[in-house]
Amino acid sequence: MSDRSSAPAARTVLQQCVQATLQIDRGMVIYVCFFKGATDDLLPKMVSTLLNLRLCESPSGRMVSVLELPGSVLVVPQATLGGKSKGRSMQYHNNIGKEDGQRLYDAFVARCQQELEAGAGPGAEVTVKHGTYGNRQVLKLDTNGPYTHLMEF
Amino acid sequence: MSDRSSAPAARTVLQQCVQATLQIDRGMVIYVCFFKGATDDLLPKMVSTLLNLRLCESPSGRMVSVLELPGSVLVVPQATLGGKSKGRSMQYHNNIGKEDGQRLYDAFVARCQQELEAGAGPGAEVTVKHGTYGNRQVLKLDTNGPYTHLMEF
Repeated sequence: MSDRSSAPAARTVLQQCVQATLQIDRGMVIYVCFFKGATDDLLPKMVSTLLNLRLCESPSGRMVSVLELPGSVLVVPQATLGGKSKGRSMQYHNNIGKEDGQRLYDAFVARCQQELEAGAGPGAEVTVKHGTYGNRQVLKLDTNGPYTHLMEF
Repeated sequence: MSDRSSAPAARTVLQQCVQATLQIDRGMVIYVCFFKGATDDLLPKMVSTLLNLRLCESPSGRMVSVLELPGSVLVVPQATLGGKSKGRSMQYHNNIGKEDGQRLYDAFVARCQQELEAGAGPGAEVTVKHGTYGNRQVLKLDTNGPYTHLMEF
């Protein structure tokens, strides 16, 4: 949906984690925010990129993707990531509308689930947990890094 | 140091937190990454902006700055924030060198400490805790949001 020269359609922040509430064990937390103009076309490349990036440390110390780990994913809708400061306040004029955002977020989570199940192989205990769009939630995060990455699409 | 049309000199991710290890109570976690070309000139505006942005929820539900809260700050050096994906790997070619990064990080922390002490008023139990540059560290984070913000300078 976006090339390097234009504004992003989505912004994500990724953190490796050891454990996070909404319980996932070893895996990755993905904070996701969609901007105005984001559509479903964005999702295949977005999910594939995020799940295949080598951001996780394997038990042997090699960098592998969350699919290769295999690990779980916690997806957190995070509209605040779309903020731009104006004076001392944050404004969210470029964020996608609530309805479209909800739909895209649900589709994003479903696609993560699909790819993780397909990629992790039989017997791997991996899962996609996710926050509820538009709701405040308690998050506890244990990291042994932390490693925080920013990816825009 | 940077205007809107050029690459940022620093990237920060901010999270409101209830409690984080390296123990701070109510306050804010700032992940910070400096890019090549960042200098000390950047710090006054950067620290002032970050500490004065209204990103924290007061007990009465109003949005206030971490200075107004008053709250503590946990600063985490986070070089991974400077990464750009190439294929399935992250590359860090634009990150500042280790020595300059260490110096800027120390100055950033000192300046946060200064402004927080000056701003919080007498008797307020606020503090700046910080990670060690270049070291891996365990981070535990409890949020009641979470709210994650991205600010570039």
